[in-house]
Amino acid sequence: MTAKIARFLEDVRPPTPCVVVDLDVIRDNYQGLRRWLPLAQVFYAVKANPAPEIIRMLAGMDSNFDVASRPEIELCLAAGASPDRLSFGNTIKKKSDIAFAYDRGVRLFAFDCEAELDKLAEAAPGSRVFCRLLMTCDGAEWPLSRKFGCEIDMARDLLVAARDRGLEPYGVSFHVGSQQTDLQQWDVAVGKTAMLFTALNKAGIELKMVNLGGGLPARYRTDVPGIDRYADAIMHAMTRHFGNNIPAMIIEPGRGLVGDAGVLEAEVVLISKKSYREDVRWVYLDVGKFGGLAETMDEAIKYRIETDRDGEPVGPVVLAGPTCDSADILYEKAGYRMPLALAVGDRVRILATGAYTTSYSAVNFNGFEPLKAYFI
Amino acid sequence: MTAKIARFLEDVRPPTPCVVVDLDVIRDNYQGLRRWLPLAQVFYAVKANPAPEIIRMLAGMDSNFDVASRPEIELCLAAGASPDRLSFGNTIKKKSDIAFAYDRGVRLFAFDCEAELDKLAEAAPGSRVFCRLLMTCDGAEWPLSRKFGCEIDMARDLLVAARDRGLEPYGVSFHVGSQQTDLQQWDVAVGKTAMLFTALNKAGIELKMVNLGGGLPARYRTDVPGIDRYADAIMHAMTRHFGNNIPAMIIEPGRGLVGDAGVLEAEVVLISKKSYREDVRWVYLDVGKFGGLAETMDEAIKYRIETDRDGEPVGPVVLAGPTCDSADILYEKAGYRMPLALAVGDRVRILATGAYTTSYSAVNFNGFEPLKAYFI
Repeated sequence: MTAKIARFLEDVRPPTPCVVVDLDVIRDNYQGLRRWLPLAQVFYAVKANPAPEIIRMLAGMDSNFDVASRPEIELCLAAGASPDRLSFGNTIKKKSDIAFAYDRGVRLFAFDCEAELDKLAEAAPGSRVFCRLLMTCDGAEWPLSRKFGCEIDMARDLLVAARDRGLEPYGVSFHVGSQQTDLQQWDVAVGKTAMLFTALNKAGIELKMVNLGGGLPARYRTDVPGIDRYADAIMHAMTRHFGNNIPAMIIEPGRGLVGDAGVLEAEVVLISKKSYREDVRWVYLDVGKFGGLAETMDEAIKYRIETDRDGEPVGPVVLAGPTCDSADILYEKAGYRMPLALAVGDRVRILATGAYTTSYSAVNFNGFEPLKAYFI
Repeated sequence: MTAKIARFLEDVRPPTPCVVVDLDVIRDNYQGLRRWLPLAQVFYAVKANPAPEIIRMLAGMDSNFDVASRPEIELCLAAGASPDRLSFGNTIKKKSDIAFAYDRGVRLFAFDCEAELDKLAEAAPGSRVFCRLLMTCDGAEWPLSRKFGCEIDMARDLLVAARDRGLEPYGVSFHVGSQQTDLQQWDVAVGKTAMLFTALNKAGIELKMVNLGGGLPARYRTDVPGIDRYADAIMHAMTRHFGNNIPAMIIEPGRGLVGDAGVLEAEVVLISKKSYREDVRWVYLDVGKFGGLAETMDEAIKYRIETDRDGEPVGPVVLAGPTCDSADILYEKAGYRMPLALAVGDRVRILATGAYTTSYSAVNFNGFEPLKAYFI
């Protein structure tokens, strides 16, 4: 937790639950990424935290933006980003939304199948398109499914088809999985990508861009490599597979830029035991799975949690949210331990909650308000 | 789907995604429950669908309400329910919210541990309290965890303690699990409850009420018993375990009242294959896990889905939502099959989506608007 956030929480004592985001951390992360990976253009993954305060700051620093929907396009344009700095990176788009983006000047689009190519050819003629490759990468904490991308031979045919339909086959994208801590995965993915570049060269198509996706981590319960080591791994993979003919590079950090910038302040609503036979305490917070901590689904993301009694003796706990929903449990198997002296009314701080929290929050489930946020 | 909903969808052609709720179905369900289970007071579980249209109608039919939070209390009072018809059924309450409820006239509260009793004794003196029992019931589709309730010997001591702190130990509640289709589970739960009544009698406490919780199902992919059979099972259990000394009964249907009343209209945004080797199509809708279909988590609730091409040849599909989140997949293992002729732009209707959809919807994840609803 930064000194600025600590001071804010102390001075303001905002009602819980709320997230406090330190914009300086995001600025530093952005500059670090530019410094360590100067060849890559940064496209901030807006979905990670679409707060106008963040978008405006990054737009002012010449960041580009990876957008998932029409409202995200409107948000970025309103924040001062020009349309040539937007990539419509969602592979699942309504044709009307493609037309909207094109009309606003967006000329860079993702796709991973023929039906999407049909829509792009009609609604965004002449645009640059990149095909997303299906990767099955190990090592990521947030589950990477087969939802996005296609296999490499299909990608080849689709990029040829893109040219034949008047689009510009511009590049290839992949995603090694969010919160990816196995650096070797970039080498695997870049290797496949280079093979695809070669295959298309034979078809007379020179791809110009590799979109490396996201995957840069925030610091949750387990430690993660620094951004410098990620940059090394990526550049090593690029030079190994592309030699001295390195294409344009795009990177799409979301979690890696904003995750560590946020602290979620919550309150202990209740502490109980279920029976006389058990030691484990149930600790209920005023925030849960439906109030912004959706990434605790299947206990995937394991946040660090601080209390004012840290350092005192601890015991095992189950952590749960405040709703009447039996699925609203944060951690039951992950082995969390909290101070035995923890009391109802205590405040706790859930760290690295700057990404995928506020916007995941349910509208009014169980009547509870969506998660509030402060940007300082 | 009711004729009224079909006509509305045909005439209005509302933008997708949206839920259309037929209030007549809710009225019929409520009246059916009153008819089949006349001894039980109905407390509608507001969290299932907190639309003012529903609350107002039920308030006008003399329904009672099970509320989970302060905003739900305000909602019910504003809709015309008097405070003596509210039960603050969440076992996890802030003391300030208990005080708020008490101040507004609410006198019936749930609890399941000593710390909650402390709060109730201070903030709601003299109120009726009921203790929730921990049940581990099989047969429910929506996972019932150990989040709520305590074991029976602890419940006994807590109800005695309630009396000693100036509260009125009023009864016992349990929940057999949402979408419970094994009718035998009520017998198990009522049997435990009757044992607890006897134990408290020996301590000089006469409990007056059994809160049977929810559990009444909506009709999803598998067929479910009718409400008459649930009523039979419940009354059979009550008479078997309480003889001719049946206490007051409360039932808290949410899904069972409003689930079948809603139809979610969605659009097919994309259909693709991942490789040349696979037969399965990926069908992407404009609604997903974060847009209101959260109960597809772990493929728990399996909705029935209709298309305009039903009856034509079908093939296997994976169903997914429109966001860039790899976890936003509805059904991958549940074996859904859809018409081979299904096309991008087709509308599909997801049935029995009146409960736990609109209010679960994320604020603006990926920029998408929360799920809209129409009440007709």
